[in-house]
Amino acid sequence: MTNKKEIISGIIIIGNEILSGRTQDTNTSTISKWLNSLGIKVQEVRVIPDVEKIIVDTVNELRKKYDYIFTTGGIGPTHDDITASSISKAFNLTYGPHKEAMSLLEKYYKPGEFTEGRQKMSKMPTTAKLILNPSSGAPGFYVENVFCLPGVPSILQSMLGGLNNVLVGGDLVISKTINLRTVESEIAKSLSDVQDQNNEVEIGSYPFFKAGKLGVSIVLRCTDQKKIDKCNEQILKFVIAKDIDILSEI
Amino acid sequence: MTNKKEIISGIIIIGNEILSGRTQDTNTSTISKWLNSLGIKVQEVRVIPDVEKIIVDTVNELRKKYDYIFTTGGIGPTHDDITASSISKAFNLTYGPHKEAMSLLEKYYKPGEFTEGRQKMSKMPTTAKLILNPSSGAPGFYVENVFCLPGVPSILQSMLGGLNNVLVGGDLVISKTINLRTVESEIAKSLSDVQDQNNEVEIGSYPFFKAGKLGVSIVLRCTDQKKIDKCNEQILKFVIAKDIDILSEI
Repeated sequence: MTNKKEIISGIIIIGNEILSGRTQDTNTSTISKWLNSLGIKVQEVRVIPDVEKIIVDTVNELRKKYDYIFTTGGIGPTHDDITASSISKAFNLTYGPHKEAMSLLEKYYKPGEFTEGRQKMSKMPTTAKLILNPSSGAPGFYVENVFCLPGVPSILQSMLGGLNNVLVGGDLVISKTINLRTVESEIAKSLSDVQDQNNEVEIGSYPFFKAGKLGVSIVLRCTDQKKIDKCNEQILKFVIAKDIDILSEI
Repeated sequence: MTNKKEIISGIIIIGNEILSGRTQDTNTSTISKWLNSLGIKVQEVRVIPDVEKIIVDTVNELRKKYDYIFTTGGIGPTHDDITASSISKAFNLTYGPHKEAMSLLEKYYKPGEFTEGRQKMSKMPTTAKLILNPSSGAPGFYVENVFCLPGVPSILQSMLGGLNNVLVGGDLVISKTINLRTVESEIAKSLSDVQDQNNEVEIGSYPFFKAGKLGVSIVLRCTDQKKIDKCNEQILKFVIAKDIDILSEI
């Protein structure tokens, strides 16, 4: 028996602007890469509108399903920022000014500038724990396994490091990429045979077009370096036999 | 009574490479913008892994909830492309070579080049309708209200136009954006009052940083131009009263 430990998570992107196509979400990729580095796997992402019932239902469904949930968006000062009040409702907690957040924001703004609009950013489940914000003062927060982050990518990114010691990660997933000058149909059968013999390695195949030329990236993912190496060896064997150019191995 | 007709849809992005953060999804935004132009609103997006049971369950849950479902990814020739077989399972239909797809692909490739690997791309629910692919031959397909598109953004984009006459759209959502040189907390209270008086207009507020300066985009969305105009007027009133610079109106 191995002690392999898989920690799984879900991401909830909250915001009409993503659903309408106005804004391109980049937070999923940022959060996923950061979680990978902690040995936490993202199993599902949902993008949902700024609608209280949908936020409450989605959070309550997913927080039972995954070890961690991360939400982005909806914690600013305007009327369409309803994540903090929705999370309070999801957990049946009092929504109101959070003492520590209030004191942080009071210090952040110049005297007289901590206006009513800004005070809304201290409102959240009153018993939540804070996620510090080195970029712009207003903190995120978490309740149990649900972590609420802002939607602005640069601010979100600056806040993740503060959670490294809060989250408990699992085994690190190692990934190896082999870039080939070929097309998928050329290697499909051989790759499928390798997958059949290496159940524990997740093998992905992704076609790409770069500088006008076709290629395929083969991505191997597993927590065990030896299993990746074995799989890699089998792939290189058929690649060489087929006389396919290897562009790079990363 | 108005005849207002809201047509809603969901998007399912299928692919481990999006969940791992390796690939940045851009198909959501492409599909959403295209659907907006047809009067179809995206209500939810899910990103899920290449796992048959999850694909089947997600498709079966969402196809009952929305007028249309669009899936992206997993219809290529390799072992990790399992969307077509999963959709067959979801609808309890036979998975196998699709006559019309087979004939299209046979014509697309040079004699002798329609290899076993490529033949997989003609396999789908045998009774599915095809979505033609002007870029690279291999068609997408649809069954009832579920439309299956490829993951490669440029190919996906080239296929959407072919569906314009297949989908039945609703009332077009008109959108107006007002870009202001301000911060959200400055306008939060006034904007909230305008929202309270204009229930049918969806008002979004999005902070931005551009060329080192802060600003806020206010986005109004509604199917009725008159309601947008009324809302816009009320916003300009408080913006002028507060002496806030208007950067642009789009």
